[in-house]
Amino acid sequence: MDIYERMRELGVELPEAPPPVGLFLPARQVGSLLFASGQGSFYRDRRVEGKVGADVTLEEAQLGARYCILNMLAALDAYLDDLNRIQRVVKLLAFVSSAPDFYQQPAVVNGASQLLIDLWGEEGRHARSAIAANTLPSNLSVEIEAIFELK
Amino acid sequence: MDIYERMRELGVELPEAPPPVGLFLPARQVGSLLFASGQGSFYRDRRVEGKVGADVTLEEAQLGARYCILNMLAALDAYLDDLNRIQRVVKLLAFVSSAPDFYQQPAVVNGASQLLIDLWGEEGRHARSAIAANTLPSNLSVEIEAIFELK
Amino acid sequence: MDIYERMRELGVELPEAPPPVGLFLPARQVGSLLFASGQGSFYRDRRVEGKVGADVTLEEAQLGARYCILNMLAALDAYLDDLNRIQRVVKLLAFVSSAPDFYQQPAVVNGASQLLIDLWGEEGRHARSAIAANTLPSNLSVEIEAIFELK
Repeated sequence: MDIYERMRELGVELPEAPPPVGLFLPARQVGSLLFASGQGSFYRDRRVEGKVGADVTLEEAQLGARYCILNMLAALDAYLDDLNRIQRVVKLLAFVSSAPDFYQQPAVVNGASQLLIDLWGEEGRHARSAIAANTLPSNLSVEIEAIFELK
Repeated sequence: MDIYERMRELGVELPEAPPPVGLFLPARQVGSLLFASGQGSFYRDRRVEGKVGADVTLEEAQLGARYCILNMLAALDAYLDDLNRIQRVVKLLAFVSSAPDFYQQPAVVNGASQLLIDLWGEEGRHARSAIAANTLPSNLSVEIEAIFELK
Repeated sequence: MDIYERMRELGVELPEAPPPVGLFLPARQVGSLLFASGQGSFYRDRRVEGKVGADVTLEEAQLGARYCILNMLAALDAYLDDLNRIQRVVKLLAFVSSAPDFYQQPAVVNGASQLLIDLWGEEGRHARSAIAANTLPSNLSVEIEAIFELK
């Protein structure tokens, strides 16, 4: 199925590709592997920021994890020209800005994983690590990088 | 040498493959690269949990790092069907839940690296990063992800 | 252009390759991908250490990020025998030891990215994630790992 049609079915609307806030590219391709840069938890002018378990609830952070993927797909849409070039999702590495007694990083990152599975089905399933950080760039609550396989 | 025979020689007993606590796969393969998901520092019902340098000693954390690899190999045994398909270990990315004045993350992660070298010899040697986190999923002390090369 | 000549033009002087402080290799190659181990923010006997935003300024930390790359290139020079084998920089994963209210990790890591772009031009541009940690090995302020593509 066309991935843009699938997005319309699910009501998924990509934001503008976020400009990198630093000296880096949104992604780099080597052979069939695409390495996507870390993206943060905002969507247009909505931001999910602060430490999860203190300033931010689990539910808000899950939405933030979803935002990371929306920004990543927007960046890859610009980089690849056509998201249908993605064959499958290989791996996520996700960081959650966490209060020191917050232990549910995997539940947060499920907000990202669910969107990828909704979009690509079995090919959207992936390996993953969910890690805590004591803070993150721009005080955002979640940052996620990923590896994709291209057709 | 058969890797299962080598495990028996070393007295290494794999646990049951831990079920992923989230929406992710234990691993994803692309070509000869195998990306293994992050695994935590428990072995059956024994857990190494809390912040190293505060709640947990270096020695306990080293054992925890070893547990991460045991869980990873159990997960890969189920995923690959045969661990002899592994050609070499490429890279570890290891996170240690750390008190803010604990600086010996590499010594912790040696507990994981030593096991891989014991099992695979020169092919078990790998690139590595050892990083601190202020907390980790389920309050475990160590989480490790890895890349392997398959035959 | 020869990369060693380019270094001379820029006044870049590689240190001795730092011995790994643990049971790991400086890098592992799989096909054309080279996975380089995490390197820390020191240069010969100068160290950039402590938490950025508390003990260390942004400017000092940027220099520390540059040191990480100098150590990495020194390690890769020894591993590859010839840095001209590098085709391009694929990806950096950078960790910044951060005070809990420091949010400028990307600006810190620009110190690393700028050096790679100065050395390799367009081929030096890369995907990247910049993450905070509450502490890092040996109390260094920055640790960076990388993936390169070889010719």
